[in-house]
Amino acid sequence: MLDFTFYSPTEFVFGHNTESKTGALALQYGAKKVLIVYGGGSAVRSGLLDRVKKSLDANGIEHCEMGGVQANPTDKKVYEGIETARREQIDFIIAVGGGSVIDTAKSIACGVTYDGDFWDFFIGKEKVSEALPVGVVLTIPAAGSEGSGNAVITNETTKQKLGIKQPMTLRPKFAIMNPELTMTLPAWQTASGICDMMVHILERYFTNTPNTEISDRMCEGVLTAIINEGRKVMQNPNDYDARANIMWSGMVAHNGTCGVGCEEDWSGHQMEHEISALYNVTHGAGLAVVTPAYMEFMSKHNPKRIAQFAQRVFNVTPDFGTEEDIALEGVKLFRQFLHDDLKLPITLEDLLPNLSRNEIEEAISEFVKRLHKNKGEQFGLFYPITPDVSTEIYKLALKK
Amino acid sequence: MLDFTFYSPTEFVFGHNTESKTGALALQYGAKKVLIVYGGGSAVRSGLLDRVKKSLDANGIEHCEMGGVQANPTDKKVYEGIETARREQIDFIIAVGGGSVIDTAKSIACGVTYDGDFWDFFIGKEKVSEALPVGVVLTIPAAGSEGSGNAVITNETTKQKLGIKQPMTLRPKFAIMNPELTMTLPAWQTASGICDMMVHILERYFTNTPNTEISDRMCEGVLTAIINEGRKVMQNPNDYDARANIMWSGMVAHNGTCGVGCEEDWSGHQMEHEISALYNVTHGAGLAVVTPAYMEFMSKHNPKRIAQFAQRVFNVTPDFGTEEDIALEGVKLFRQFLHDDLKLPITLEDLLPNLSRNEIEEAISEFVKRLHKNKGEQFGLFYPITPDVSTEIYKLALKK
Repeated sequence: MLDFTFYSPTEFVFGHNTESKTGALALQYGAKKVLIVYGGGSAVRSGLLDRVKKSLDANGIEHCEMGGVQANPTDKKVYEGIETARREQIDFIIAVGGGSVIDTAKSIACGVTYDGDFWDFFIGKEKVSEALPVGVVLTIPAAGSEGSGNAVITNETTKQKLGIKQPMTLRPKFAIMNPELTMTLPAWQTASGICDMMVHILERYFTNTPNTEISDRMCEGVLTAIINEGRKVMQNPNDYDARANIMWSGMVAHNGTCGVGCEEDWSGHQMEHEISALYNVTHGAGLAVVTPAYMEFMSKHNPKRIAQFAQRVFNVTPDFGTEEDIALEGVKLFRQFLHDDLKLPITLEDLLPNLSRNEIEEAISEFVKRLHKNKGEQFGLFYPITPDVSTEIYKLALKK
Repeated sequence: MLDFTFYSPTEFVFGHNTESKTGALALQYGAKKVLIVYGGGSAVRSGLLDRVKKSLDANGIEHCEMGGVQANPTDKKVYEGIETARREQIDFIIAVGGGSVIDTAKSIACGVTYDGDFWDFFIGKEKVSEALPVGVVLTIPAAGSEGSGNAVITNETTKQKLGIKQPMTLRPKFAIMNPELTMTLPAWQTASGICDMMVHILERYFTNTPNTEISDRMCEGVLTAIINEGRKVMQNPNDYDARANIMWSGMVAHNGTCGVGCEEDWSGHQMEHEISALYNVTHGAGLAVVTPAYMEFMSKHNPKRIAQFAQRVFNVTPDFGTEEDIALEGVKLFRQFLHDDLKLPITLEDLLPNLSRNEIEEAISEFVKRLHKNKGEQFGLFYPITPDVSTEIYKLALKK
């Protein structure tokens, strides 16, 4: 087990009607004037935004707002938010939405207090030393951004989709998590979120660090819970308890609870980011295509952890065959879950239905080119990802 | 799943030589003059105390100290610490030790800032509204006090062993966890700690709250890890990775990570407290006697969760028999682990070897009397504990 620091100071307030506590929590964390960041119209139509504002009013907290954040959020809304926050002399930001909204809010939070261009943080030119405090009212369990210090933003000009990890400055002060708010999510979004949170765990689980039993068992436990409750949620979207289990799993998957003491990789996420940056696909759906392909490749080249996943999460028995056989069977069962239960695409053809086979092959060349431009000729800790390897993995995501 | 708040703002710094960061962390959290609280001579003999002081000196932090805290810590040392802290105008307390030392430090921390008697908090007369900040250098993985807002103190006069739970005020600011520091622990103390952390999970796991899948799977995962790594540690006390897995498990078992959304019970702990309050036995060893007896009783009266534990943690197969049979088999295997692997007592006779059979039966009457005096005629959420029930459970802890 490697040395590590675990620091997750967010106050999570979970359960029925908890959005009514937004104002009291914002007050507790010192808010005087809040910028509310949100996405499309659903937060407005459902009345959620009004309830949040009412709660702020009741606690004497001023507020203004910025809507219109979209999936795969871009730098444009961040610049807009920074300008608004400065003009309105905001001292606290509340994100009402899912990962895209929260990541935009975090990026505004560190951009406001920085003299230069916030994008400097994302290209590694500067480190975040301070940020406005952020609170969250979560509506989509997926990204886990409500409990992490991470944010991912796409630069509209350069088409780079890049992330930052600043656990000491960008973790939300509080996160309000009411599973009822997730009941009206479209099945597609619920499913993509479930895949996203599973992969957040797998990216930590696919490690070469030995003797990480406590982390392994927690990862496997959370993955098992997500599969069981994910099936329930897909069958009955109004199942409060299943929604609650999924919502909490999404947080646990990404706040650092899983993966302590492991060298983490995240190659799969990086390979997906190239797809969603260019084609604006839903991140979780992109992962449903890329991650099993990555695992299929690793079943031949570094099978140990994939085989352990197969045995402990999908109950493949040790007598099934070689370590590679066991690993590949796990990948097959994982793909079945994604396809049959979650109704997600598991091939590039299904993910990008408007492209011909030829165009998909050209797209793969482009993904590989951009991936290694962003990450270097060789990257990856679990297995070295060279252009040959990434090409093979993207090709394993083609229809067989 | 029930509504809940999860708030664990402690900064955990884990790994080799991390005690050298004590001063830097104390400084980060605003310490100017520290009271170091510790236990017996081992922290002195090992040089740990000197390393902690050196680290404080290097960061320009003044310090004084109070040693001599013993297992099942008493109010006496708390009063002494409060007096010292006031006299020396302490603004930060650092506990160097295990649960007894940390609980004493927390009790001093809330006693210093309170005009009345700190015991008021323990008998429920007052709530903790403020406390000095506390930091921890952990040497015994067991109580999980490094990540919790709880403390347990025994009143020497009344012989009451009572606990407080103040997660918003008494969670340590930081906890330094170096597994190397635990390698010299006597096997008895290692084993008692392992039992204690397992029971911290079981007290949350034995719940009637339905549909707590994510909590269940995390509890079962951590229990499995503790059993596997516990066996390794007992066989090879110098196995760093096994020590590390156990050390982190002890924290996770008690900071609220396990058991979210469950109605918790803690009847087993309450029944043990009566034994250690009167006979000063090691808490974890007392639990090794009481908890399986509690589970044996529940196997007949509320078997569902005991049977689930048997199947998922000790791999009892569903075809083993009735739910009661499966549950009882799980209890048998748990007792085997405690006795054969951890070398802990599993009967009252083994726990209290100086008492005759008659004296033990008299002691049971005394435990029952005191238990219900402290907790009421009937208590317990998982199953109502009346004097008849508690008597039967204590008797199930007798040699068969």
